[in-house]
Amino acid sequence: MSEAAQTLDGWYCLHDFRTVDWTTWKMLSSDERQAAIHEFLSLVEKWNTVQERKEGSHALYTIVGQKADFMMMILRPTMEEINAIETEFNKTKLAEFTIPAHSYVSVVELSNYLPDGEDPYQNPHVLARLYPILPKAKHVCFYPMDKRRQGNDNWYMLPMAERRNLMRSHGMIGRTYAGKVKQIITGSVGFDDYEWGVTLFTDDVLQFKKLIYEMRFDEVSARYGEFGAFFVGNILEEERISSFLHV
Amino acid sequence: MSEAAQTLDGWYCLHDFRTVDWTTWKMLSSDERQAAIHEFLSLVEKWNTVQERKEGSHALYTIVGQKADFMMMILRPTMEEINAIETEFNKTKLAEFTIPAHSYVSVVELSNYLPDGEDPYQNPHVLARLYPILPKAKHVCFYPMDKRRQGNDNWYMLPMAERRNLMRSHGMIGRTYAGKVKQIITGSVGFDDYEWGVTLFTDDVLQFKKLIYEMRFDEVSARYGEFGAFFVGNILEEERISSFLHV
Amino acid sequence: MSEAAQTLDGWYCLHDFRTVDWTTWKMLSSDERQAAIHEFLSLVEKWNTVQERKEGSHALYTIVGQKADFMMMILRPTMEEINAIETEFNKTKLAEFTIPAHSYVSVVELSNYLPDGEDPYQNPHVLARLYPILPKAKHVCFYPMDKRRQGNDNWYMLPMAERRNLMRSHGMIGRTYAGKVKQIITGSVGFDDYEWGVTLFTDDVLQFKKLIYEMRFDEVSARYGEFGAFFVGNILEEERISSFLHV
Amino acid sequence: MSEAAQTLDGWYCLHDFRTVDWTTWKMLSSDERQAAIHEFLSLVEKWNTVQERKEGSHALYTIVGQKADFMMMILRPTMEEINAIETEFNKTKLAEFTIPAHSYVSVVELSNYLPDGEDPYQNPHVLARLYPILPKAKHVCFYPMDKRRQGNDNWYMLPMAERRNLMRSHGMIGRTYAGKVKQIITGSVGFDDYEWGVTLFTDDVLQFKKLIYEMRFDEVSARYGEFGAFFVGNILEEERISSFLHV
Amino acid sequence: MSEAAQTLDGWYCLHDFRTVDWTTWKMLSSDERQAAIHEFLSLVEKWNTVQERKEGSHALYTIVGQKADFMMMILRPTMEEINAIETEFNKTKLAEFTIPAHSYVSVVELSNYLPDGEDPYQNPHVLARLYPILPKAKHVCFYPMDKRRQGNDNWYMLPMAERRNLMRSHGMIGRTYAGKVKQIITGSVGFDDYEWGVTLFTDDVLQFKKLIYEMRFDEVSARYGEFGAFFVGNILEEERISSFLHV
Repeated sequence: MSEAAQTLDGWYCLHDFRTVDWTTWKMLSSDERQAAIHEFLSLVEKWNTVQERKEGSHALYTIVGQKADFMMMILRPTMEEINAIETEFNKTKLAEFTIPAHSYVSVVELSNYLPDGEDPYQNPHVLARLYPILPKAKHVCFYPMDKRRQGNDNWYMLPMAERRNLMRSHGMIGRTYAGKVKQIITGSVGFDDYEWGVTLFTDDVLQFKKLIYEMRFDEVSARYGEFGAFFVGNILEEERISSFLHV
Repeated sequence: MSEAAQTLDGWYCLHDFRTVDWTTWKMLSSDERQAAIHEFLSLVEKWNTVQERKEGSHALYTIVGQKADFMMMILRPTMEEINAIETEFNKTKLAEFTIPAHSYVSVVELSNYLPDGEDPYQNPHVLARLYPILPKAKHVCFYPMDKRRQGNDNWYMLPMAERRNLMRSHGMIGRTYAGKVKQIITGSVGFDDYEWGVTLFTDDVLQFKKLIYEMRFDEVSARYGEFGAFFVGNILEEERISSFLHV
Repeated sequence: MSEAAQTLDGWYCLHDFRTVDWTTWKMLSSDERQAAIHEFLSLVEKWNTVQERKEGSHALYTIVGQKADFMMMILRPTMEEINAIETEFNKTKLAEFTIPAHSYVSVVELSNYLPDGEDPYQNPHVLARLYPILPKAKHVCFYPMDKRRQGNDNWYMLPMAERRNLMRSHGMIGRTYAGKVKQIITGSVGFDDYEWGVTLFTDDVLQFKKLIYEMRFDEVSARYGEFGAFFVGNILEEERISSFLHV
Repeated sequence: MSEAAQTLDGWYCLHDFRTVDWTTWKMLSSDERQAAIHEFLSLVEKWNTVQERKEGSHALYTIVGQKADFMMMILRPTMEEINAIETEFNKTKLAEFTIPAHSYVSVVELSNYLPDGEDPYQNPHVLARLYPILPKAKHVCFYPMDKRRQGNDNWYMLPMAERRNLMRSHGMIGRTYAGKVKQIITGSVGFDDYEWGVTLFTDDVLQFKKLIYEMRFDEVSARYGEFGAFFVGNILEEERISSFLHV
Repeated sequence: MSEAAQTLDGWYCLHDFRTVDWTTWKMLSSDERQAAIHEFLSLVEKWNTVQERKEGSHALYTIVGQKADFMMMILRPTMEEINAIETEFNKTKLAEFTIPAHSYVSVVELSNYLPDGEDPYQNPHVLARLYPILPKAKHVCFYPMDKRRQGNDNWYMLPMAERRNLMRSHGMIGRTYAGKVKQIITGSVGFDDYEWGVTLFTDDVLQFKKLIYEMRFDEVSARYGEFGAFFVGNILEEERISSFLHV
């Protein structure tokens, strides 16, 4: 009998990290750069229209440090749309001056460690979380993670009841950050190299550190968390794209 | 006395992942691009003929995220044919505009944890699985895996009977996905860096996540599974190749 | 109830390591190189002004070995300023001749394993450490680190009291190096791949080795320390930049 | 008192894996390509002469998958000759169109787990194995390996007698493949990153998988084997070099 | 109370591994290549002068396999001199045709597991080992290493007396190779990614393998040794530099 937690799944998600090749970008004429920026802004405009229709969402952030220069986070109802957007970007002029730095493929997921008998798909709050319009927060933090399967620290060998208890107390820490940090969990088993992606949004970047550090002392992270690379960034508002790319 | 499970082995298999160099591809004239696409389609046509004769099979999928842009999965009776197809592709015009992103060399394998006394090679169902015509499913998922040999979690030190029992209950999970997910296991001991490749096909991409996640709670995966990189993609029908490559 | 140590957090920090592409740098005319150096020195001059106003600090070091040629360490009150400085450098002429080699994003942190009842933010000594003007020491050493979570050696599962005791004795080793080595700890949970960055400054480079080696026998490092890559360098005084870049 | 197994050592060995840069290779004129192939064939001719004099041996195989396009395996009496051959190849025209993909430095080794009192260097069979003329088998398999030193699975802490027993039963599996698979073990402690290289030759490529898989259930591999990357290939006969490189 | 072994420290050390870009090197005219070689030989001549004054030492070796083509090993009294030599080489013409392949930063170190009461810095033998003139041996072997800190195999948690005993018996193996292998240990805690570099010199390259393999059965290596990449090479005498670089 399966002991797997039931999950609820919403929009598919692509985190697409890019590094700008400033050297070749500067080789363009100012007009060519303007045309490339204009083309990219048209793409974003298209994404805005989709978002207004609540058929998807997206976010743009510059990334701090050398891991990448900016990130596009894209949410859509199907894997095909995610793929099409990625390819459409790859064919733009701007893409010629960006270098793929990292990406992550996943789907918005809610772990259903809730009481039985409640149909989550009838819950408007649940639906809002499965198909979220991404916030315009000042900062983003992204990292992928696994639940550990190592010697005596094997999450997947724990009884369901124990996992549920551990997750409940873990969730309580998260709840103390409500209003300060918004969290979107995306599942990636079968889609990418870790089991989950975690995307956090905040207006006070220090809260990322406080939240994750506090959670690390909780048994779920302390014994069972395996973390991938961390990316932190600042919002790239559409009206700031031109100046960000101005050389 | 050897405790190795007997395997049945079918066609050799190459998973060949490629990234398109869109920047240089755009530098070609439209005519040159058409010629390159035409040459590639002729290659695919040749593969189709082989497939119609049931002397091999192949599949083309675009890959989501930056790991690759598309994958060619090729099945053939000999390692030499696999090698020849790879080299033939490498010499095409299109290949000049693709960057090798990943590959995997293996052979279609059925683990013979079946009752004794039954000759599997007489079984038409077994033969169909050893020499499979790949389905035209909407989505593909590929990942390589090992059985763990670590401290107390050492698959290869378990008695045959215990392994057989574990695999039987593992297989039962798989069976509940029959009709939803088609699975092709390829063995790669001695051929590539992991022990097996797993290729899944489905028309509902979420089933990849559900299947693999459910299996992860099964002892075979929980204690003994080691997984490599995961690739997920959407079918690239022949008639869509031109538009996929259109810039 | 959370067992996380409280931290005090000061300026945000970017360690930005660069390799010089000497081959293309030599292709410039002497005048072009002079202009590029001049532009970079103007940037440093701007950083000096900020530092004089105590609104940030910075340091320049050449790095020994092939890991990088030089490092810029930048401290600022916000993550946005860190990001802006990085982008501004990336747009300079000099940056066209450097290759990103490594970076680290963090925030100056003091672990508050101090007695209760004392408000650290009222303590001028604490404030000087949270918003430090970087010393003009001859040598720098940088490395990131984690506290281990592995089997029986799991720092995050230890009771707070035990962690406090371990850190106190660990700190005593550090104190015997007072006057010889200055240490700046930056926290990077949620910002980069390790939990902390350690930046050491000294006029006697052998003290780095002595300090870190001595600490390695202390239980905090011996059982619980996980270390990333180490970078060691020599101060690059502003007046030496031109000769360093002279070809 | 040392518990190290005595080894017998023969010719030095270089496995040199190369990827062809087909794009730039095609940019040559047909005459230039012919000249480059001719130069390479002359080199091989020189190697043939050495081999006929039994002063060394070599083998050429194409490699399946993206890890490499072909491999040169070279055996010579001294490390200097190995180095000279490598440098001579690097200076050829063909080398300009190959990209180093992987290499391995080792020396032919026989583990002397034999009965005492027998002088192995008097044994013509032993000498033939220390200075082997490489077979013209259809397929090659190469992988490096270590004996594990991890927790309770530490080969180097086992008593000599236990290691000898384990190796003896391990060897018996190998012997059942006699006539089907030829195995050359090369030692690389102090020469390269693993402790041994294993090179297998066969006319039936499936035997690689069967042999290695069967051995994996043997305690020597199950508990004590650590394996590096696996390369599999098909023989590249001299008369096939031109057509392999024909574009 | 610190349990760290006292160390004696001598000259700083850079191991600088380079790959030759033969393709672009061949594009130079013969005169340009001669000029580049001449410039490099002048640099070596300067190093010779320093060595004659016993103010440093150096060695040049070609490296076998694809890891690098040659290695420069440089010893100097200060980290600044090491850095200056590296930068001076980087600005030469020859450096434009070499690709950094690996480097290691360390300082000559003697572990002081000797009896108390003896002042090692008064010992001429000790001084000769701290400030060694590198031998003109035919072969070199370099690898970095750590002492393990893993579960029950944690070197840094052992009592000083036990470490001293283990090291003494370890040293005895080394002593049986006296006259055959010369060993220089350099400490790199705080300077590079491992704790030590080991550089071995011999006229019989097989002795590297015998020594390291024999030591691997000693508890210090078997339980506590963690090894990085191994590099092996042949001496590159000054008079052979021109022919090595001749194309």
